[in-house]
Amino acid sequence: MQIEASKQNKERRQRLLECALDLFIEKGYFNTSIRDIIERSSYGTGTFYNYFADREDILKALLEVFAEQIITSITGSYSGEDDLLDSFIATERITMEVFARHEKLSELYSRVAGASAPIDKCLQQFEDRLLAFYSKNIEYGIKKGAFKNVPVSPVAHSILAIEKFLLYKWIVLRAITKDEMVEMVVSFHETLAAGLLADKSGDSI
Amino acid sequence: MQIEASKQNKERRQRLLECALDLFIEKGYFNTSIRDIIERSSYGTGTFYNYFADREDILKALLEVFAEQIITSITGSYSGEDDLLDSFIATERITMEVFARHEKLSELYSRVAGASAPIDKCLQQFEDRLLAFYSKNIEYGIKKGAFKNVPVSPVAHSILAIEKFLLYKWIVLRAITKDEMVEMVVSFHETLAAGLLADKSGDSI
Repeated sequence: MQIEASKQNKERRQRLLECALDLFIEKGYFNTSIRDIIERSSYGTGTFYNYFADREDILKALLEVFAEQIITSITGSYSGEDDLLDSFIATERITMEVFARHEKLSELYSRVAGASAPIDKCLQQFEDRLLAFYSKNIEYGIKKGAFKNVPVSPVAHSILAIEKFLLYKWIVLRAITKDEMVEMVVSFHETLAAGLLADKSGDSI
Repeated sequence: MQIEASKQNKERRQRLLECALDLFIEKGYFNTSIRDIIERSSYGTGTFYNYFADREDILKALLEVFAEQIITSITGSYSGEDDLLDSFIATERITMEVFARHEKLSELYSRVAGASAPIDKCLQQFEDRLLAFYSKNIEYGIKKGAFKNVPVSPVAHSILAIEKFLLYKWIVLRAITKDEMVEMVVSFHETLAAGLLADKSGDSI
């Protein structure tokens, strides 16, 4: 039975997550059983169920940690704010580098979509969290007068969409390199930014 | 054994494709066997293998037909060309309506990604064909002086990426309606277009 988060041992939880992630990449998510994860961790079955209810529960926890890491990295990068355009591009580079650095989590995210309803629900929580964060940042740019007053949600979706698509091209298809992935996403943001930026002369289209 | 395309009976081939597509949606791609498809079609086993080598071969053929339909619809829509911006937005609306109209093909496309290397290869052929077509259209806009001289490939990727992502949100997650999907993709294109459009005064950023 799951125990309260406050009473959980962080190192044990972390170890279970790491063992699960390794196995998901080695054997595939669907070919990995709870038994495999318990054996790899060397913990007892009871210990496992103190932390997680089932395989989807682990997937959900892994994606939560991933979203947290992405958002923390981006938030940490908002230092200067002198130039919102530079900041917009720099932030995207940081985001892609977080994806690139967490290769296993990126691969898990890229591979499991569309497979089953419970999995899609886990993914949707992860994506909704990122979309809300991206939207907030664009709204901030609009509020500051740096961006035009465009519909925010479609732009936030386009950002996550190109990240996801190029991540898949890199980590699943291996059709582009990690650097190509980062540079393509950044280049797209430069073109998009020109559409977002408020006219310096004060006019807006 | 497969027979030459020129000697194939178009109606039979079409019927096999339709039966396969129906089954892929009803039972899932991985739960559908060649046997299921043959039974549904009421043809003999020999007939099936005159047309297709295996299940991936059908998936490939279905996606080829789909790409053809998308490209033909878009090509047919380039009539006036008076205003490249209007044309850019109108074309995107038509593209999304083709996706929306071919609900089963869209669902197949949205569900099978990342599942196995042969499937990913089929998807990649489909996506590469659309990317090449989108790139050609953007290059045309640049050549005509309507669009800025931006790197084309990242923009083409962003277009397919948002189409794919919102298609998945509609047809797999059912998190948005068909109309919301179309409107969000169109709205994104309006923002992107402002970044693509060459400055009318002749300056470019």
